[in-house]
Amino acid sequence: MTSAGPHLSNSPVIGVFDSGFGGLTVLRALLAQMPYAQYAFLGDTARLPYGSKSQRTIARYAAESAQFLVHEQKAEFLVIACNTASALAMEAIQAAVPVPVLGVIEPGAAAAAAHSTTRNVLVVATEATVKSHAYAAACRRQGLRGVEKACPLLVPLVEEGWVDHPVTEQVVGIYVEELMAEARAAGQTPDTLVLGCTHYPLLRKVFESKVPAGVQVIDSAEATAAAAAGMLGLEGSRVGRDGAGEPRIRCFATDSVEKFERLGSRFLGHSVGEVTLVDLGG
Amino acid sequence: MTSAGPHLSNSPVIGVFDSGFGGLTVLRALLAQMPYAQYAFLGDTARLPYGSKSQRTIARYAAESAQFLVHEQKAEFLVIACNTASALAMEAIQAAVPVPVLGVIEPGAAAAAAHSTTRNVLVVATEATVKSHAYAAACRRQGLRGVEKACPLLVPLVEEGWVDHPVTEQVVGIYVEELMAEARAAGQTPDTLVLGCTHYPLLRKVFESKVPAGVQVIDSAEATAAAAAGMLGLEGSRVGRDGAGEPRIRCFATDSVEKFERLGSRFLGHSVGEVTLVDLGG
Repeated sequence: MTSAGPHLSNSPVIGVFDSGFGGLTVLRALLAQMPYAQYAFLGDTARLPYGSKSQRTIARYAAESAQFLVHEQKAEFLVIACNTASALAMEAIQAAVPVPVLGVIEPGAAAAAAHSTTRNVLVVATEATVKSHAYAAACRRQGLRGVEKACPLLVPLVEEGWVDHPVTEQVVGIYVEELMAEARAAGQTPDTLVLGCTHYPLLRKVFESKVPAGVQVIDSAEATAAAAAGMLGLEGSRVGRDGAGEPRIRCFATDSVEKFERLGSRFLGHSVGEVTLVDLGG
Repeated sequence: MTSAGPHLSNSPVIGVFDSGFGGLTVLRALLAQMPYAQYAFLGDTARLPYGSKSQRTIARYAAESAQFLVHEQKAEFLVIACNTASALAMEAIQAAVPVPVLGVIEPGAAAAAAHSTTRNVLVVATEATVKSHAYAAACRRQGLRGVEKACPLLVPLVEEGWVDHPVTEQVVGIYVEELMAEARAAGQTPDTLVLGCTHYPLLRKVFESKVPAGVQVIDSAEATAAAAAGMLGLEGSRVGRDGAGEPRIRCFATDSVEKFERLGSRFLGHSVGEVTLVDLGG
């Protein structure tokens, strides 16, 4: 994480990368913070989900994706809108491209630190993110103790569209119960739960209804967007406003453009527009 | 599907391919039919799941995997133990390798035809398999009418280990209900349900408890193994028995060897042994 200030052009392209389209929840948060910037979003949909793959494979895929955004789309700043890639591939990405790179883990842990008084935090994420213990490490750096749990059913439930569904409520209830039991067994009294996967903001209300009273749910997408605006010095910025007047978003996917266009709007909150198919040679 | 008889060596290597380890349910059925053959199983775990990807991508991945089994592992016969690849990549695979290739779709439809008296059949499968309508076409060729349904939550539920779990029972119940409603709306009276995904045999009992009385559940893995033995002329065969006396199984994966070894036994019914990591350049 380097300060990018002086090297940025007047209307910088912010590259946003995810293994799929879940990262559109981060793009949505970025648009709320910096509505007039330009965005290039890449979903590596041909190779998703990263969440169940190994560190070596994820690092290679993520580096190739970052290079596409920087070399082909001229991104001057990269947001890794994918918890798994942030957890397992930050070094590989930073080594692969010459621009500042921001992941979602550190901002999520920082937001948890700002909210927690007990200093005990819960994190829900994919299998690979949890296995990396990246959130536990980031929490430690913030003076927090974090208990992590993999919730592999939640991404499929969101993609099935079962966001307000009794089965999803049950599954979230089971995961939260298991997590709380684990935290209690470790003598902790958590007051904060971090949604450590970009699909999970769509389940925020379900989580809020299932956590015990007094536990606050933190969305790492919002925390990341705020951190990006801070790093770029663009909080409430007018950058790009002299241009088209509309945020300029170009979306790319390595597969399933139709599915991306259809499901993407759920995550972005409005249409993703036309999605361009790209081949990263995978 | 060519007859392979005269060109086979005495103890042929049967190559078995899946995008993951679900295809081990097919290997299990093959072992029951041909216990003394040699097997090379490849799970393209780095690029799974195929079920949510496009035809073009699936065809490329499957052809590369088939070439590995034939060129590197000397397979003389290939079983595509993956419904999605069978639905979308059979031609690409047949064009890529010079050995006979058997998929799971035709045997599944043939087994349904052997059981059904109403000639109305239900098929549950992944999103990509259903979208290809490969089962509906195979059913038509058998003189059956097939109604297909994508059940994207079932693979994650099986991989979470929630095989005997109230949530899984509910989800299967919802899918079966929706499928029956669709069949009834089309004026059909189905008496057969085909499990059109290699993960689903683990949920066979759940399906059997949820389908209406009189509906038979067909496992396409078993049907495929029987068809393979028939094509190879090896029903109840002693092929290979003169060799080691044990079935010889070599397992390969493109990623997550540890996960393959851990979860694979659930599908195979016993340990998969040591799994070798291979790089298909993906």
